Amino acid sequence: MVTVYENLKSEHPKNNFTIGINDDVTFLSLPQPGDIDVAQAGSMQCKIWGLGSDGTVGANKNTTKILGEYTNLYTQAYFVYDSKKSGGLTQSHLRFAKMPIRSPYLVSNADFVACHNPSYLTKYDIIKDLKKGGTFLLNCQWTQKELEDNLPDEMKKSLAQKEAKLYIINAIDIAKGLGLGGRTNTILQAAFFQLVNMIPIEDAVKYMKDAILKSYSKKGQKVLDMNFAAVDRGISDLVQVDIPSAWAALNIQAPAKPNVPEFIEKVVNVMNRQEGDILPVSTFVGMEDGTFPAGTTAYEKRGAAVDVPQWKLEECIQCNQCSYVCPHASIRPVLLNEAEVANAPEGFKTKKALGKGLDKYQYRMQLSPLDCTGCGSCAAVCPAKNKALVMMPLASQLEEVKRWNYAVDKVEIKKDAINFNSVKGSQFAQPLFEFSGACAGCGETPYIKLVTQMFGDRMYIANASGCSTAYGGSTPATPYTKNRQGCGPAWSMSLFEDCAEYGYGMLLGSEKIRATIKEYAEFFTQKGIVAAEAENWIKTMQDSENSEEASLKFSQAIRAYSPKNPMETEMVDFIIKHKDFLPKKSYWAFGGDGWAYDIGYGGLDHVLASGKNINLLVMDTEVYSNTGGQSSKSTAAGAIAKFASSGKRTKKKDLGMMAISYGYIYVAQVAMGYDQAQTLKAIREAEAYPGPSLIIAYCPCIEHGIKGGMSGSQMEMKKAVESGYWHLYTYNPQLKEDGKNPFTLDSKAPAGDLKEFLRGEVRYSSLQLAFPELADELYNKAEADAKERYENYKRLAEYK
Amino acid sequence: MVTVYENLKSEHPKNNFTIGINDDVTFLSLPQPGDIDVAQAGSMQCKIWGLGSDGTVGANKNTTKILGEYTNLYTQAYFVYDSKKSGGLTQSHLRFAKMPIRSPYLVSNADFVACHNPSYLTKYDIIKDLKKGGTFLLNCQWTQKELEDNLPDEMKKSLAQKEAKLYIINAIDIAKGLGLGGRTNTILQAAFFQLVNMIPIEDAVKYMKDAILKSYSKKGQKVLDMNFAAVDRGISDLVQVDIPSAWAALNIQAPAKPNVPEFIEKVVNVMNRQEGDILPVSTFVGMEDGTFPAGTTAYEKRGAAVDVPQWKLEECIQCNQCSYVCPHASIRPVLLNEAEVANAPEGFKTKKALGKGLDKYQYRMQLSPLDCTGCGSCAAVCPAKNKALVMMPLASQLEEVKRWNYAVDKVEIKKDAINFNSVKGSQFAQPLFEFSGACAGCGETPYIKLVTQMFGDRMYIANASGCSTAYGGSTPATPYTKNRQGCGPAWSMSLFEDCAEYGYGMLLGSEKIRATIKEYAEFFTQKGIVAAEAENWIKTMQDSENSEEASLKFSQAIRAYSPKNPMETEMVDFIIKHKDFLPKKSYWAFGGDGWAYDIGYGGLDHVLASGKNINLLVMDTEVYSNTGGQSSKSTAAGAIAKFASSGKRTKKKDLGMMAISYGYIYVAQVAMGYDQAQTLKAIREAEAYPGPSLIIAYCPCIEHGIKGGMSGSQMEMKKAVESGYWHLYTYNPQLKEDGKNPFTLDSKAPAGDLKEFLRGEVRYSSLQLAFPELADELYNKAEADAKERYENYKRLAEYK
Repeated sequence: MVTVYENLKSEHPKNNFTIGINDDVTFLSLPQPGDIDVAQAGSMQCKIWGLGSDGTVGANKNTTKILGEYTNLYTQAYFVYDSKKSGGLTQSHLRFAKMPIRSPYLVSNADFVACHNPSYLTKYDIIKDLKKGGTFLLNCQWTQKELEDNLPDEMKKSLAQKEAKLYIINAIDIAKGLGLGGRTNTILQAAFFQLVNMIPIEDAVKYMKDAILKSYSKKGQKVLDMNFAAVDRGISDLVQVDIPSAWAALNIQAPAKPNVPEFIEKVVNVMNRQEGDILPVSTFVGMEDGTFPAGTTAYEKRGAAVDVPQWKLEECIQCNQCSYVCPHASIRPVLLNEAEVANAPEGFKTKKALGKGLDKYQYRMQLSPLDCTGCGSCAAVCPAKNKALVMMPLASQLEEVKRWNYAVDKVEIKKDAINFNSVKGSQFAQPLFEFSGACAGCGETPYIKLVTQMFGDRMYIANASGCSTAYGGSTPATPYTKNRQGCGPAWSMSLFEDCAEYGYGMLLGSEKIRATIKEYAEFFTQKGIVAAEAENWIKTMQDSENSEEASLKFSQAIRAYSPKNPMETEMVDFIIKHKDFLPKKSYWAFGGDGWAYDIGYGGLDHVLASGKNINLLVMDTEVYSNTGGQSSKSTAAGAIAKFASSGKRTKKKDLGMMAISYGYIYVAQVAMGYDQAQTLKAIREAEAYPGPSLIIAYCPCIEHGIKGGMSGSQMEMKKAVESGYWHLYTYNPQLKEDGKNPFTLDSKAPAGDLKEFLRGEVRYSSLQLAFPELADELYNKAEADAKERYENYKRLAEYK
Repeated sequence: MVTVYENLKSEHPKNNFTIGINDDVTFLSLPQPGDIDVAQAGSMQCKIWGLGSDGTVGANKNTTKILGEYTNLYTQAYFVYDSKKSGGLTQSHLRFAKMPIRSPYLVSNADFVACHNPSYLTKYDIIKDLKKGGTFLLNCQWTQKELEDNLPDEMKKSLAQKEAKLYIINAIDIAKGLGLGGRTNTILQAAFFQLVNMIPIEDAVKYMKDAILKSYSKKGQKVLDMNFAAVDRGISDLVQVDIPSAWAALNIQAPAKPNVPEFIEKVVNVMNRQEGDILPVSTFVGMEDGTFPAGTTAYEKRGAAVDVPQWKLEECIQCNQCSYVCPHASIRPVLLNEAEVANAPEGFKTKKALGKGLDKYQYRMQLSPLDCTGCGSCAAVCPAKNKALVMMPLASQLEEVKRWNYAVDKVEIKKDAINFNSVKGSQFAQPLFEFSGACAGCGETPYIKLVTQMFGDRMYIANASGCSTAYGGSTPATPYTKNRQGCGPAWSMSLFEDCAEYGYGMLLGSEKIRATIKEYAEFFTQKGIVAAEAENWIKTMQDSENSEEASLKFSQAIRAYSPKNPMETEMVDFIIKHKDFLPKKSYWAFGGDGWAYDIGYGGLDHVLASGKNINLLVMDTEVYSNTGGQSSKSTAAGAIAKFASSGKRTKKKDLGMMAISYGYIYVAQVAMGYDQAQTLKAIREAEAYPGPSLIIAYCPCIEHGIKGGMSGSQMEMKKAVESGYWHLYTYNPQLKEDGKNPFTLDSKAPAGDLKEFLRGEVRYSSLQLAFPELADELYNKAEADAKERYENYKRLAEYK
């Protein structure tokens, strides 16, 4: 949870104000003498619940500035954000008063509460902080009648008891009608001014329209008019709802105890209700080092999608590509044996599985509608003649929930069907990364998910700060999970600048323990104690395929052995205590281009140079995504990014080539949207290579502004490669041993039009709008750079 | 000045002791109650002056440990070092007492003082800290009679007044005789024990011999025997000298005021006498930011050489190669016109200058014997049939001092002779880096010197920590100097990890000022004010050849102009204030491979990627030289280094190739010992290239253990290239514009034997001694790596 604290103080009479940002505020202090709660008449405290994407925070900042700048009022605003990339929550805490405000804590005694998203009513205790006689504004599409049906009883009763004034407004349909899409902020800002009544509404309207003029005057009269209308409609369309006296007498039933683990109920759900502050320190006994249980996202069931895919059994060709590309692991192929088919819930339709050795199973593609974000990637990539996946409204697919539960809880993973030599076969493995808070259509998470399917049960991951840590582990959300045997990735976030080194430290630490076990195993071998098992364990300790079984047998044998002397006891105890270290490990560092090309590059280079068996996965969005799109050395010439607002002048750094110069590093460039099989092969080879590996994965991102939206992110990768913007290759040093060229160019010669590709993304096309001549120059440069790069690759690939 | 503070305390009765290192000791505090000076009978304070290279500090540490470990004594030792790489000074401050020692200041009331190097007698006030009745031990080759002639009168008088006991010992000849070379430490340690008499001498002998046994038992009986003998001779060969009563009556004349600038007399010389602590803070008023005058090393005149080159006029072919390779700029060609010939001092022999346009001058190669370190590089590279330079004892060449002074003070630099297209022509330019404290035969400093000859008058240098900052600027020594016009490099040391960025900041800051001047110049051009000069300055502001003259004219014109209004006044004032920024600058970052390949690589890469016009010079010794030989990513496979004590396993990083991958960076690998002209050309092109440049210069180093010694460092570079260990190339992106291959391989195909080259350096050959089988494997790997590297270069060079 990120908290931004902004205190905007009007310095009467000059009306200057200062903005401070402080993330170290003591929220739990109580009102003190002089505080607004205690001393000030005529003050106003407000709390507003909004979406990360609906502009609520921006509107509230603007409101605060208007009141601070144009009136004698002192103003204060705190904004509380979560870390979700899609469907995130914002809470605005606003105070306005005639005296200085010295309240360093959140608003909990609000004169005004607004809820900008009706889905929050069942998730959060929205009006907890509303004071008696206060005003509550709800943005919803319901009529007064429907409101009666949809408001939770607890809320109705509470509103009645608080003698609240209740208002509704349908800003959703107003915004759509005005052409504003999902941007309800201006409408709701006007409603706010009308209801809080701190200044004459005519003045408020004037200030708001002035601000609109300032922001949008360059965008033309049409845009101005729709925003002006939004202000007017926010006032005219407000509806006051009388609260029936019957609401006060409602009989509230205690909610049923949820069927979830205790930790989820007592910690995760509390935090997810935005009530984490009430948890006492004692809740975390045993977790003082920051360890957090895996797989908590499986209990979120956010239902954030508008539309979700419906599976058409008859059309499906069982390629599993939909599962492969799903950024949230919320659509998965299921193979069932006869008993599992027999016990399946209603509507759990299946068809005979296709493929060698699979015909004993029934096949089904199963969606989790409440975990799906509705990006549509699955439907977009579906190669079936008549699409086997069709996007349908979420509400229509809720029957799938119990089928999903059956599939993941009761159906065994069919190990014999898993085959990492084929895209299809890879998807029968369980993803150990699921339901993250990544953006709908995220280009990064499908790679991560795939890697966890392949190596997740024996993986260590060091993760560089960035999107991949925001969605990879923002308390209490842990998308990294474990399989039914209790094995899953060990994951930890590092700083931006040292992720490779951090992962390297994991390797050194773990391999040191394994080396000690090896010494002991050698001792036992020599003494003829559990010799066969010990010897076999040593032989396979760096062998991905056979280490697991050998480890199990060695561990069992050593447990069964009775040590003959204290030295043996010590060795046996050590091995048993460290049995998790027996199977071969897979060491990884994950991060974006900001880490790999820029801030962490020195360390990345050092770790690659070490020659040690570590795998680095770079999710290349060509921009600092998490912090809002700053230019990195991965950004190509001509792209607009922060710090490169008139287009980047220098060409993209060729990170892969730099690693290849060592000669003993496995390097791959991949783009799953162009070639899923090449991605799979590169990841497989990289992990198997007994030295350092670097995988650079092309990742479309919301920062690119793909014209068709993020549902097309897989297609966009294809276009990137076909146009010569991105290339696929592998450099496998092991091929040199056979006298072969280690470099293989895996993508075809560019056939498309690079400039057309560039024009399809706002990061490039906006340069054309802003600086047309410069754009031509930089597009030409981008084209020349791409050509030079391709020629280099081609030349390398042609070496004999 | 680096001060290491080690406090070794014997914890009676267990005889443990702790060693602490602290470089933040308050030396200027005065004796306090409880201090050894005030309270303790039977204590002993000692001060010993030694050379950095003679083992004095090691012996004193050993002495302190013996007394701390085997007796009930408390012991304390401080060691004060200077930063000179050759001929450095050490001062050991030792205390022994029966009570705990709490004296956090240097010894200034010594019972015992020793001087291990007779040349110190005239440089430092050696016996200043000797207390009345104390003992003074002098290591010298003099007889008692010669002593009378050689001891300075001040010292004689002081010894007599202090009623000192005077001892001499000829440890120099004893060590030579025993086969110990210059290692006099054991002999002098034994003499110390005999004279301080803290424990029975039989015990001291036993402890010393035990320590010898422990250290050298693996090296064979012969080595043990010579060290045992050193102990015995240190006791038997001590000679006590009676101090004649006449010494007390000697008439001491006040020294003549030296003919040097006031700052040298009052600050630099004081510091160089090791008396810097007595300087009051007020000495440094005006230098609070750390600014230090340039060129102070010219006043050191250390006379550190044993042998120096004598020039043979008749043999000289005037190639200037000796000057080119001299690490200390202490041999330079001089061109004289008729008047200068006429005024020359006695013995200033010259010959007619050879070469086009030079025949109007007389030529001479001039040595500065007191600045020469005697490495012999000049004589080694001299290509004359019968060498024109022959190494002779320093004392025989002291007549050259006045000739040197004439050459540098009175003879004009002949600008028309300077030609940076030829090695010979380059040496007529004044080096603006001279007489540094670098090792004799240093492989790095000839490159730096050359760069300052070419661009020193308009250069900014950011210098990464390491040897090049230790010899480049250790207070009070500043080898970077200025020409007679007052122009020279602006130099500053950065940390290891950010040198490239630091230099980049210099560039950005300076170019920002120049951009402002450009705006003003454009204003003046438009207004028709000093228009011609302003316009010409703008046109040439990034033009190395013509900017200087245009700047001078613009500056003169702007000074002559009377501003017509306040805005013009502001502009004119700004330009006059910043006139130093008018000429085109040359921005550089200097450092070693520890900086460039390892710790500062992330920043180096970032700065190179920026596309800005900055030049990075990497002095590649393939090892962390300044800190004592730790392995870097530049270290090649098979080399022994710290952290790679059984040979480095991974191959050398190809820094140049990594930079080349950008396509817009000028990259060169050079080794002046193989091709002086290629080095010159690469530096010239790198600086002229209007983008980032990287020059990787091969630098032999004492850490390599070149079998023939450092006088062969230039030859060693030749061998390195001929054997295929190192390659010369340039990558000039500008060639691409003409459709040419930007990559040129400048060295011939390897012809020599790589393994023979490896065996010629201790860093490699010691692996053969320690791990013969591993050595074979790693030598083969080194050979294969070198071959692969050459093949890559060849392939690149062959592109059409």
